[in-house]
Amino acid sequence: MLSDSNARLAAARGLTSPRGRREAGRFLAEGAQAVREALARPGTVLELFATAAAARQHAELIEGAPVSVISDRAAAALSETVHPQGLVAVCARLDVGLADALARRPRLVAILVEANDPGNAGTILRTADAAGADAVLFTGDSVDPYNGKAVRAAAGSLFHLDLVTGVSPAAALVACRDAGLRTIATTGAASLDLDELTDRGGLAGPTAWVFGNEARGLPADVVAAAELAVRVPLHGRAESLNLAAAAAVCLYASARANRFPAPS
Amino acid sequence: MLSDSNARLAAARGLTSPRGRREAGRFLAEGAQAVREALARPGTVLELFATAAAARQHAELIEGAPVSVISDRAAAALSETVHPQGLVAVCARLDVGLADALARRPRLVAILVEANDPGNAGTILRTADAAGADAVLFTGDSVDPYNGKAVRAAAGSLFHLDLVTGVSPAAALVACRDAGLRTIATTGAASLDLDELTDRGGLAGPTAWVFGNEARGLPADVVAAAELAVRVPLHGRAESLNLAAAAAVCLYASARANRFPAPS
Repeated sequence: MLSDSNARLAAARGLTSPRGRREAGRFLAEGAQAVREALARPGTVLELFATAAAARQHAELIEGAPVSVISDRAAAALSETVHPQGLVAVCARLDVGLADALARRPRLVAILVEANDPGNAGTILRTADAAGADAVLFTGDSVDPYNGKAVRAAAGSLFHLDLVTGVSPAAALVACRDAGLRTIATTGAASLDLDELTDRGGLAGPTAWVFGNEARGLPADVVAAAELAVRVPLHGRAESLNLAAAAAVCLYASARANRFPAPS
Repeated sequence: MLSDSNARLAAARGLTSPRGRREAGRFLAEGAQAVREALARPGTVLELFATAAAARQHAELIEGAPVSVISDRAAAALSETVHPQGLVAVCARLDVGLADALARRPRLVAILVEANDPGNAGTILRTADAAGADAVLFTGDSVDPYNGKAVRAAAGSLFHLDLVTGVSPAAALVACRDAGLRTIATTGAASLDLDELTDRGGLAGPTAWVFGNEARGLPADVVAAAELAVRVPLHGRAESLNLAAAAAVCLYASARANRFPAPS
């Protein structure tokens, strides 16, 4: 039994690497909030690891779930944070196919192209959820949304949205347009700014926002393939916005435009 | 000469700790972007350290500045990042007094109360700059804005705004109100939401936004001391927004309201 438990722990530890996650089709969700959201989604949690202290502290939360009690040291080895929380769920990947996500007729979508900071990726998932988005697409060479830091930054929102991975930016843009979404590329080089677009009613319909890499922005071919290009206005002397901050401004502009449509 | 150089390097290394920064009244700014912005502000850069490679790469940028060439290892010891950039400026603290900042009649201010993540703090500085804010106030037990991670996340915007530290939230709120700023506390518990406030013209005048701790939000006494309390609407199932994302939505709502005032 002990060796079985050790083998399961070793397998879980393998999920701290991108390759381990890919090969197993599983990922780790750490902490009470993420575990609660994971447990609320049937079929997601495959097993749970908890330190004795965490098992006591979160007894109600994990009641009825298949828990293995582990040492503090083992919990630290499963954690990608400085302060391990002692509670980790092994979860089945959540991806849905692009066609399935679009068949649900989403009204607000975020497409990430080559985003490479896991904290930004998780924050954008959380913000997209808060803004009422239906799906987030990780395209091209974007960071793995199942990375421990991304899962942590998503604060449970990973489990609320349709998550699509492994498609090219071009395929994502074509499919979104065919599904009736207006595709809007965000780039500092655009002549049209977000306020102007909002004022002319440009955010009223179903929208897919396209966000680029933290340092390089969007590739020119992706900007060209989108229906519109827009910049977030810079009123001070900052050269640009942080990716997750820009996404927050754009996604909330859509949420507001759809909540209070301009009189026609 | 070598021992003098070593002593200066050791002194600079001391600035990687909060206490070292406080006692010296200095901080470190790393990387080409931060160094460029620091050099653009007269009297800010006290000395520069560069690896031979960085000195070559950024020869134009650092021309005429007092540069000490250091080893890669010494550069790593000055860095708080995984990938040291080999270029670090020792800068004089930038703080201005609260009265001085308010004497310039700011129209948009961010007040941080017990914010404790340096990445969030730096991102909020960058976003506040982008939204056209005039000042950012770090009050109460907020993180040190001169922390290496905060400086890095600010991406140069630290040098663009009036930065105020070391005041209490209560003193900041009273002084802002007396200076004609509407103080707006952000809290998920508020009955009024940001869209409603915007629609009734509540963001048209000079505004000081008040943001709380990442986990606990704002203390009740701070909310009570503000003129208004507002929440960012949550349209999906996220429990809350990341602090920097919430700040981006609020600060940009102000920027937009002041750019296109509602017809009166």
